[in-house]
Amino acid sequence: MPELRKDPISQRWVIIASERATRPSDLKPDDPPPAPAFDPFAEGNEDKTPPEIASFRAAGTYANKPGWRVRVVPNKFPALQIEGGLDKRGDGIYDRMRGIGAHEVIIETPKTINTFTGLPDAHVHEILWMYRERLLDLQRDGRFKYGMLFKNVGRSAGATLYHSHSQLIATPTVPQTMQIKLQACQDYFDFRGRCLVCDMVAQETEQNERVVMDSGQFLAFAPYAPRFPFETWLVPKFHSSHFEHHDRTVYEELAFILKRTLLKLEKGLNTPPYNYMIFTSPFHTPPSEHYHWHLEITPRLTPVAGFEWGTGFYINPVPPEDAAEYLRNVKL
Amino acid sequence: MPELRKDPISQRWVIIASERATRPSDLKPDDPPPAPAFDPFAEGNEDKTPPEIASFRAAGTYANKPGWRVRVVPNKFPALQIEGGLDKRGDGIYDRMRGIGAHEVIIETPKTINTFTGLPDAHVHEILWMYRERLLDLQRDGRFKYGMLFKNVGRSAGATLYHSHSQLIATPTVPQTMQIKLQACQDYFDFRGRCLVCDMVAQETEQNERVVMDSGQFLAFAPYAPRFPFETWLVPKFHSSHFEHHDRTVYEELAFILKRTLLKLEKGLNTPPYNYMIFTSPFHTPPSEHYHWHLEITPRLTPVAGFEWGTGFYINPVPPEDAAEYLRNVKL
Repeated sequence: MPELRKDPISQRWVIIASERATRPSDLKPDDPPPAPAFDPFAEGNEDKTPPEIASFRAAGTYANKPGWRVRVVPNKFPALQIEGGLDKRGDGIYDRMRGIGAHEVIIETPKTINTFTGLPDAHVHEILWMYRERLLDLQRDGRFKYGMLFKNVGRSAGATLYHSHSQLIATPTVPQTMQIKLQACQDYFDFRGRCLVCDMVAQETEQNERVVMDSGQFLAFAPYAPRFPFETWLVPKFHSSHFEHHDRTVYEELAFILKRTLLKLEKGLNTPPYNYMIFTSPFHTPPSEHYHWHLEITPRLTPVAGFEWGTGFYINPVPPEDAAEYLRNVKL
Repeated sequence: MPELRKDPISQRWVIIASERATRPSDLKPDDPPPAPAFDPFAEGNEDKTPPEIASFRAAGTYANKPGWRVRVVPNKFPALQIEGGLDKRGDGIYDRMRGIGAHEVIIETPKTINTFTGLPDAHVHEILWMYRERLLDLQRDGRFKYGMLFKNVGRSAGATLYHSHSQLIATPTVPQTMQIKLQACQDYFDFRGRCLVCDMVAQETEQNERVVMDSGQFLAFAPYAPRFPFETWLVPKFHSSHFEHHDRTVYEELAFILKRTLLKLEKGLNTPPYNYMIFTSPFHTPPSEHYHWHLEITPRLTPVAGFEWGTGFYINPVPPEDAAEYLRNVKL
């Protein structure tokens, strides 16, 4: 019998339809793209990208030259442009504004590799520290209201480049998805006087059916109502509204658990296409009692079709309890 | 310069980023799936599907035998199941219910073809008349709150079967996407005292920049803020809240314009994968002044990646004015 479950943060219902499938081996990832003949993100090709915005690099090396470990450049084909005013206007019943924003690429390694899971934890820590730096820097610009950090891996997940990288898009409005999450967390807090995600952490830890890994300060778990098979969330177990408000030790532990969670997905599911997204608080907001940042990892193993597009319902053939158990047992 | 536009019904912002592409020929559809060796939906194979729920068939022919023109069967792998009570329950902070609903397949023709655009208008009319019949029948069941009619064509659009068909899923809650649309239309009506889509029809007709086809009672147009290149909506130009509340002449005209709009997409874009979805009012609701049903056709020519999943923003490289002009000029 299928089951309908509601995710309390996104307010989405999902259909857990385990009759429709499926052992992990039935979920076929698309082929990972081959390493390219020419890699514009590799060390030595710094002149093939726009000039760098930031980098962590060896002492004595120069911007846009080799010697970096993590490097941030503007997207060569930006979805939004950095220069100008918003020029908000009506057009009859419609609303528009100029496409102002920032679109940055975080190149995560100088090597031509497709994933950072083979790199030392200290390197993954530097990637996360760079996420923090860029979020802090971009919110100095009052035109930007939100910064979405995300990663596309594999063609079905929308990746067009092989080399391990993430992206950051700063938008001039708070995205609809975030507005729904913020409202749900606010409503929950107003009703119960507690943070929704803190309550989620408590229940997940206690039930212990959907936990993939617990690192002490962070929990990796399959959410109660996942849209996609093997969807996995990472949340701090302590309350925190802003991803970018931590000190180094926190990112060190996040690097540890993020790398191992991704490794389990890669090993257990044969390098699936996936996205991850960091849902931090909007720019220019103070620490809040009701919102709690989180990172969502969504493998792309099932198609999204008219029903999902039309309703916002998702059909997931793998119960999260099964997915979590499977991933827990993947040996690293 | 990219432009941000807001769709007033879905409340989504989209980024029209025409610098990022793109002539229609640059948008590569995936290959349409080949005709299958065995077609379970073809005439003569009626015993390869679950027993039929409804059909339009020649006088003197029998259910589950040849002689039908349009045939409805339960989905063999249903996302929701028809039998039982909802058994709504909490699970700590979470909500769940049993996966009760209906999942039907509308087989649109006895022939092994991938699209109904080659069939006579009268046949397409019967398909739409069947949509109406099934919506009216399913809402007799008080457990079901909404009926989503949709079509998946091509692999990137989630289709797994070649034979021309649509699906109808009746859900036990009103989907989130519909709730957002209903609220937006209600808010607009409360503020202005007019129907949002009626105002949209007036503005589109007057500006005449995004119209693809006007059949008199129906308008096919590129919406102001399309998520996808060549997204096209069909709406009645007169006010109507329920798709299923019309008489035959209305579906005749809808069949005329729907078939020709799809033909233009097929000819102009080299048979792209696409979905369409009908957004009618929820079940058991009386005719309303504020909601106006519509049909959305969404070709799948651009990937959906972490940014779109995370924000609900969409990046569309083709301005709707260009898309409409292109489709207007496709000769049938």
